[in-house]
Amino acid sequence: MSAVPVGLVGVTGYTGMELTRILSNHDGMKLVRVTSRAEAGKKLADIYPFLNGMELGGLEITAPEVEDLAEACDLVFLAVPHKTAMNIGGQLYDKGIKVVDLSADFRIRDRETYEAWYKVDHTREDLLPEAVYGLPEFYRDQVKGAKLVANPGCYPTSVIVGLTPALREGLVETSDIVIDSKSGTSGAGRKAAVGTLFCEVADSFRAYGLTTHRHTPEIEQELAVASGEDMTVSFNTHLLPIDRGILSTIYTKLKPGVTAADIRAAYEKAYGNEKMIRFLSEGQLPETRWVRGTMFCDVAVVPDERTGRLIILAAIDNLCRGASGQAVANANLMLGFEETKGLSLAPMMP
Amino acid sequence: MSAVPVGLVGVTGYTGMELTRILSNHDGMKLVRVTSRAEAGKKLADIYPFLNGMELGGLEITAPEVEDLAEACDLVFLAVPHKTAMNIGGQLYDKGIKVVDLSADFRIRDRETYEAWYKVDHTREDLLPEAVYGLPEFYRDQVKGAKLVANPGCYPTSVIVGLTPALREGLVETSDIVIDSKSGTSGAGRKAAVGTLFCEVADSFRAYGLTTHRHTPEIEQELAVASGEDMTVSFNTHLLPIDRGILSTIYTKLKPGVTAADIRAAYEKAYGNEKMIRFLSEGQLPETRWVRGTMFCDVAVVPDERTGRLIILAAIDNLCRGASGQAVANANLMLGFEETKGLSLAPMMP
Amino acid sequence: MSAVPVGLVGVTGYTGMELTRILSNHDGMKLVRVTSRAEAGKKLADIYPFLNGMELGGLEITAPEVEDLAEACDLVFLAVPHKTAMNIGGQLYDKGIKVVDLSADFRIRDRETYEAWYKVDHTREDLLPEAVYGLPEFYRDQVKGAKLVANPGCYPTSVIVGLTPALREGLVETSDIVIDSKSGTSGAGRKAAVGTLFCEVADSFRAYGLTTHRHTPEIEQELAVASGEDMTVSFNTHLLPIDRGILSTIYTKLKPGVTAADIRAAYEKAYGNEKMIRFLSEGQLPETRWVRGTMFCDVAVVPDERTGRLIILAAIDNLCRGASGQAVANANLMLGFEETKGLSLAPMMP
Amino acid sequence: MSAVPVGLVGVTGYTGMELTRILSNHDGMKLVRVTSRAEAGKKLADIYPFLNGMELGGLEITAPEVEDLAEACDLVFLAVPHKTAMNIGGQLYDKGIKVVDLSADFRIRDRETYEAWYKVDHTREDLLPEAVYGLPEFYRDQVKGAKLVANPGCYPTSVIVGLTPALREGLVETSDIVIDSKSGTSGAGRKAAVGTLFCEVADSFRAYGLTTHRHTPEIEQELAVASGEDMTVSFNTHLLPIDRGILSTIYTKLKPGVTAADIRAAYEKAYGNEKMIRFLSEGQLPETRWVRGTMFCDVAVVPDERTGRLIILAAIDNLCRGASGQAVANANLMLGFEETKGLSLAPMMP
Repeated sequence: MSAVPVGLVGVTGYTGMELTRILSNHDGMKLVRVTSRAEAGKKLADIYPFLNGMELGGLEITAPEVEDLAEACDLVFLAVPHKTAMNIGGQLYDKGIKVVDLSADFRIRDRETYEAWYKVDHTREDLLPEAVYGLPEFYRDQVKGAKLVANPGCYPTSVIVGLTPALREGLVETSDIVIDSKSGTSGAGRKAAVGTLFCEVADSFRAYGLTTHRHTPEIEQELAVASGEDMTVSFNTHLLPIDRGILSTIYTKLKPGVTAADIRAAYEKAYGNEKMIRFLSEGQLPETRWVRGTMFCDVAVVPDERTGRLIILAAIDNLCRGASGQAVANANLMLGFEETKGLSLAPMMP
Repeated sequence: MSAVPVGLVGVTGYTGMELTRILSNHDGMKLVRVTSRAEAGKKLADIYPFLNGMELGGLEITAPEVEDLAEACDLVFLAVPHKTAMNIGGQLYDKGIKVVDLSADFRIRDRETYEAWYKVDHTREDLLPEAVYGLPEFYRDQVKGAKLVANPGCYPTSVIVGLTPALREGLVETSDIVIDSKSGTSGAGRKAAVGTLFCEVADSFRAYGLTTHRHTPEIEQELAVASGEDMTVSFNTHLLPIDRGILSTIYTKLKPGVTAADIRAAYEKAYGNEKMIRFLSEGQLPETRWVRGTMFCDVAVVPDERTGRLIILAAIDNLCRGASGQAVANANLMLGFEETKGLSLAPMMP
Repeated sequence: MSAVPVGLVGVTGYTGMELTRILSNHDGMKLVRVTSRAEAGKKLADIYPFLNGMELGGLEITAPEVEDLAEACDLVFLAVPHKTAMNIGGQLYDKGIKVVDLSADFRIRDRETYEAWYKVDHTREDLLPEAVYGLPEFYRDQVKGAKLVANPGCYPTSVIVGLTPALREGLVETSDIVIDSKSGTSGAGRKAAVGTLFCEVADSFRAYGLTTHRHTPEIEQELAVASGEDMTVSFNTHLLPIDRGILSTIYTKLKPGVTAADIRAAYEKAYGNEKMIRFLSEGQLPETRWVRGTMFCDVAVVPDERTGRLIILAAIDNLCRGASGQAVANANLMLGFEETKGLSLAPMMP
Repeated sequence: MSAVPVGLVGVTGYTGMELTRILSNHDGMKLVRVTSRAEAGKKLADIYPFLNGMELGGLEITAPEVEDLAEACDLVFLAVPHKTAMNIGGQLYDKGIKVVDLSADFRIRDRETYEAWYKVDHTREDLLPEAVYGLPEFYRDQVKGAKLVANPGCYPTSVIVGLTPALREGLVETSDIVIDSKSGTSGAGRKAAVGTLFCEVADSFRAYGLTTHRHTPEIEQELAVASGEDMTVSFNTHLLPIDRGILSTIYTKLKPGVTAADIRAAYEKAYGNEKMIRFLSEGQLPETRWVRGTMFCDVAVVPDERTGRLIILAAIDNLCRGASGQAVANANLMLGFEETKGLSLAPMMP
């Protein structure tokens, strides 16, 4: 069987870069279009010399044209900012092209919530019911039949995977959840900015966007699915002096009577058969490097009798599992491939 | 006036190293003894070439001998592990030498609590009532008259400074406090160990010691002083790929009716006149680099109406404010110097 | 065809770790033995949790036993220190097992030179004529028929690839070569040591082993092959605060009359058809991240008319191309696979 | 005596930032003007929160006005790009204000050389004979009487200090010098640019500007002073993933008959009485962290009999010794203070 032709709109950011890395090792999809207005006319290896000598490095970058993309591709990945994504994504959808959107535009099912947090009007409300939230472990069947997948945010992926079993099984109070997330700097994007210069980030650590991060409504939406209740959580983010990786430390209150065995059972039940989520043994705590470059989400649970809490840790690679790898997993499902095709490499250690 | 002769027991760790850095710039104290069994006979600059060409670099390292220390020094800093510290510290105290102990041995006023968390017997219970907990902003007067100061732990310094005003003024619930702390790797000490090799720490991030960190009882003891109630908190720690710096993100629940103005007023009241605590303006969040090499503890408060919480951030340099700098501040007070003598440099940026 | 059973002696170092990473993605070889005296009895994922959930993670670590290795494996990788390697490697060879030795023991063809630089007696001088120096681009045919391959050192790989075309074609003076190499810290090994702790390496840079590095005779031996003359070079090394990567900056003097075009032609001729060496376009300079996790050796040439010099740059991943990846390439050739099997992934960026 | 009022033109870059750090600890000079067109009207602590709570933090940033600077200041530091510096520096000079220019504009005594390397016309050629090259160890007396000091470049400082004794004493060939320098990323400035983002620099290493770096003529000019001959050297630079620090590894050829003792004698003679240059003991090699935040230039010599070479290493902090600290040392001399006033702190370790 020949490979399915796919396109990538927005190749110059870190998620675009990561998609080229992953797809260069995927024999079921062939990247036939990569777009960037600023870099159109160059070969991919001209802007990404790490692709020198690889087949993909010879691909010419084009300006994004819906007609051209629709003719050339069966599926298109959108690695562009929100607002831009809904426009081009909508047009591609209208032409019958499958779309995996890495932006936030189709993640929030409720238009008003989206508009309140993202401060833009949603121009394709009609597509919101069509969009499937692409967290494979929870929406696998829907993704298989989807034409438009809203690829989850990086932080939400870690948090939702971390909390879902506890909420589903009613082990923790829903009203008292604190999420302390830390992300590598690639999550801040590849735009020239003083704040993410090497000398502003290296050898330092800081919080940012406390209480106001735009991933909050996405997290609350999916946690509500898990718990069956409306959810309000405290979600807070920090910037790590590392390239890749998110670790979310999640603080919950145990419901009365819940035992450590109950907790482990809930997570085993949810994830025991999952290939891309690893529920760690008692005593093991995740490290971001253990998931570097992979789809793994490593989850640990630490019950604390003394304070009546359950601490949940979830680690992912923000670029792979938290963005481009998950996008490929979704595309795999949409195109009839095995979910993990091209995604089963070992982590890069050290 | 000639400088006061002081000694340092345990010069080979990072807190010992930091003491040499600070004291080399202090004209009121003169380091006349530095000890290490393993390195005795060498000059300080032999093991610390960064002190080449500085007067202190020529000081000879000796094996720790109580008699010799007591004869040569008016005050001795102990930068040795717990258990060792109580023994040598006790002997020095008995000889009338002032002691600043950087270990945990005299921090916990309740012997049983100490023994339960540190798993050793306390051999100098008699000194526990004598020891002053050396957080200058809260125990300034007692430190001035003290002969034995228990220098606070690094994490506790950040947490206690962060929480005290909110607890003193009764702004937050005492029963629902979660502390998510992150520390630079120098906090793990200077012992050869695979787990803290460069390639095991760099470009990664991990939690450790969740729910069980030995700084917990120290934190709870001092928070109880602030709140007037027994305190049980969830205290959890993470390892940052940076040399120096602690950032503690502290999650509390606001009591009903407390306003943002109340909160700022409480912190202004507590710290408005303090030189070494900086209560940040609204909108500013601390960064560990802003306090690098200094005694500053930077504190920010972020009320969150949506979730009814107050998030408090506190950043320090774990080696300076969190250990050796604070030890010097305490020694300053004990010896009649200005508290900040030798400690008022600007942070090292970048 | 079923996979060829292979073994790995010495799994606890970074080159052993890297071999597990690479072989977990290789469908022609199956790792059936991994050895470590210290960790025998554990599963691989117990010491390397990044292999959790991967088939290889379940493999039990055993103590190294020649009989057992010889029975179970067709080929064995040795990732143990020199001296140890010649002994166990010799015994495996005697039993007809193919060996790829990652140590230095069989790299130096002249016993006396080996003994002078490594300060040990060579106990298997008989095997020196059998051993093939496993730099595939230069010894491809010999490796195919070899039973014992001496896998090149990390620094030498970069230097020999960098210099060979210039020497072969007689473009530069052979008597005046200076090599300034810089390596990531994984090259220092995974042994507990103060000198490679995070806080001793991060945010710093230093030279080490100037003029005396043990890779010198290996470099000179292979450069002599390229030039047809005895070679004496100045080879000097530095420690980078990065996990992986070597960049060698090589300074040579151009012979009279040699033009920039001559130089480019020589490198195109040598490497134009090589898949794992990338001769960069004019103006491009290599970066260690462009080769991270791969077999690529990126080479650039910078003629300098003003000083009559040719500067050559060569970058590799010291663990992959400089050790374990190259070992797998050699094993591929020895076992009849395509040289790059399991080794053609894109670099990990960023 | 009251402090001398000084000004700083260009406060938003790393050298401007470093000047604020150093001057905040200098009791002989008082910074009364700091300028930046973009940030005028803000307080210094608004853009540099690390100065919160320090007296300097309250200083208002102004737009640069020559009249105002001349009225308010006895001496002005220029931390602006070349071309801009010659203009404002010239105007201040004309008004009788002492100037320390951190740019390259007055470093090159030969106008044509300057214009050829910097690609701009020199508009104040008249001042070139007035400008003193501010490397205190070599131009101490001239600096004392200077009204305009050209503060040396960062790389040149390390290279000139490293090579001067060997050249002065005629120990090495003048025609065969290769300089391989590596610099921390603060040397690239504080401008928003993709190439110096954290994720483009961290965990990687690269060369840049080989054979063409603008510091070349400055280096050659001063080496010619040392040797008494015209000099042409190969000077090449690399980017380190660290904040601060330069290490230059300098390769020379020993003249016949020169012994290791001759070499050490030459360096002892040159630097034995210098406080800010540390000639390391045999066997010690410099590390950039040993000089972090200080004026120290650490120098080591490694003779290599085998190749007939002398390798010289020189390490500095590029922001302190290589820019702002050296500027303050020059200002100290110009204003009649002790050269090291405000500059004698111990390095920040780790």
